[in-house]
Amino acid sequence: MAAFTFNKLVIFGVGLIGGSLARALRERAALSGEIVGEIVGVGRSAKSVERALELRVIDSAASLDDDGALGRALRGADFVLLAAPVAQTGPLLARIAPFLDPASLVTDAGSTKSDVVAAARTALGDRVAQFVPGHPIAGRESSGVDAALPDLYVNRNVVLCPLVENPDEAVERVAAMWRATGAAVHRMNEAQHDRVFAAVSHLPHVLSFALVEQILEAPDAALKFSFAAGGFRDFTRIAASSPEMWRDVCLANRTALLAELDAYTTVLARFRAAIDASDGAALEAAFARSRVARTEWQERGGQKRADDTPAK
Amino acid sequence: MAAFTFNKLVIFGVGLIGGSLARALRERAALSGEIVGEIVGVGRSAKSVERALELRVIDSAASLDDDGALGRALRGADFVLLAAPVAQTGPLLARIAPFLDPASLVTDAGSTKSDVVAAARTALGDRVAQFVPGHPIAGRESSGVDAALPDLYVNRNVVLCPLVENPDEAVERVAAMWRATGAAVHRMNEAQHDRVFAAVSHLPHVLSFALVEQILEAPDAALKFSFAAGGFRDFTRIAASSPEMWRDVCLANRTALLAELDAYTTVLARFRAAIDASDGAALEAAFARSRVARTEWQERGGQKRADDTPAK
Repeated sequence: MAAFTFNKLVIFGVGLIGGSLARALRERAALSGEIVGEIVGVGRSAKSVERALELRVIDSAASLDDDGALGRALRGADFVLLAAPVAQTGPLLARIAPFLDPASLVTDAGSTKSDVVAAARTALGDRVAQFVPGHPIAGRESSGVDAALPDLYVNRNVVLCPLVENPDEAVERVAAMWRATGAAVHRMNEAQHDRVFAAVSHLPHVLSFALVEQILEAPDAALKFSFAAGGFRDFTRIAASSPEMWRDVCLANRTALLAELDAYTTVLARFRAAIDASDGAALEAAFARSRVARTEWQERGGQKRADDTPAK
Repeated sequence: MAAFTFNKLVIFGVGLIGGSLARALRERAALSGEIVGEIVGVGRSAKSVERALELRVIDSAASLDDDGALGRALRGADFVLLAAPVAQTGPLLARIAPFLDPASLVTDAGSTKSDVVAAARTALGDRVAQFVPGHPIAGRESSGVDAALPDLYVNRNVVLCPLVENPDEAVERVAAMWRATGAAVHRMNEAQHDRVFAAVSHLPHVLSFALVEQILEAPDAALKFSFAAGGFRDFTRIAASSPEMWRDVCLANRTALLAELDAYTTVLARFRAAIDASDGAALEAAFARSRVARTEWQERGGQKRADDTPAK
């Protein structure tokens, strides 16, 4: 584990993601005898930051609507994390910009990156060099600060999408913060990021929502649901995800998602043709390829994989 | 639990499904002090029936290729269960027919029913009245007799698709056998059965195989797999299923599956149009409907539901 210290971290959105970062830095540092700096929470609702204070996830709170409080919160911050829904990245950065300390590093936790980068360039102008886009690949079914865990990021991946404007040291400092939570840090550009997550995360969510929608529309929906078993359960677990969040992801990553959706539709049309032609050999060959790939993925550690960028 | 007794049960295919029925009848009956009859296993490979004998899942074994042994096995059997892949239903019934005792009841465990009914009519002719088509909705990731469990069917659903030729008592006897394993028994016709399972089981398998296939075909497949996380894991768990079994299911339930696949493609095209038009309201409304339906399904007991036909 890298030794990692900071003076002040300001978290916009102290829910599952932001709260888990705060708990990880504080509680994991305590285990190794390190002392961490002040953690300030800024929230849209007074209730969520109050709850975070109550749980001692943050040391102090500031309201987004109070210029004075916001200015004091941001003064001297070495790190600022945006952990609000991606659609709020632009408005939040515009709100922060007038108070942003030139020495602060800003990063985010959004599931999409091209839109976040575009919003940051607009909101920050030349100061976009202070913004290092990021995406921790971690989550839980429950949300909110009560669901925050100190070990949410242990052995998980965090992707950083550095901008050409980012000084190397800035990227390295943000990477060190995430490594201190137990995560493995990877770098790719934002287009690559959005393509990868369109394929392995955003598309499966859309496909899962679509299956439930289709069954709902059937005249015998109740009968169908009543006989749905284990395959349906796993396939549609993600169809119980937040509609707002996934609406935003679909819109924010529209281009990459449409490309993946079209590629998927092409594969599905080929499967349809094989079923229609009773071409058992083609179906079996395709299913066997999938089985091998899925089994090997699982054996490589599945989502637990975090071994290719070891924490120093 | 209904008291259930039998003299002789002959199981064709002593794997997970057939072996679990044998273990359930024997071990659950032992708990309630009942004595069950003889259980005979018939297998394609000598190895699998030998293993079943070794594990004491069956009392004796017969080879499918030996007329004398097959005749002795079937003589005086009150129940015959076919628990082999659905594509073998026709050949198996044709092989059994010359030796079938007029007092025996035959049932099966196939995932599709229209094709099984057609095969049974061809193979058995007038004696199809002895054949009560069935489908236990249960399974495990592992297969073979070593994976068989005495409680595999507890609180699971079993669907029977009685034929017009079946005497009521025949259907009731087969239902009683399944209830003795702890399952809840439901009845529907074979077309209804195939529509329901095309939607909630067969289609999700095809969709899951297709996602893995699509990622495999991408030039950046390795990168995509390496960042696949929890959503991908659950969505594609069923893409590690048996290619042979799912090839057979796709072909056997071709008509219903194509209808569901086309309905799904229509929903997906609507989602695509909403994403393309950045119609957030339409996406959010659809996702919200799915979330509610999926959450309610889970709260009703998900796949554990077995309360509408309580065992007597």
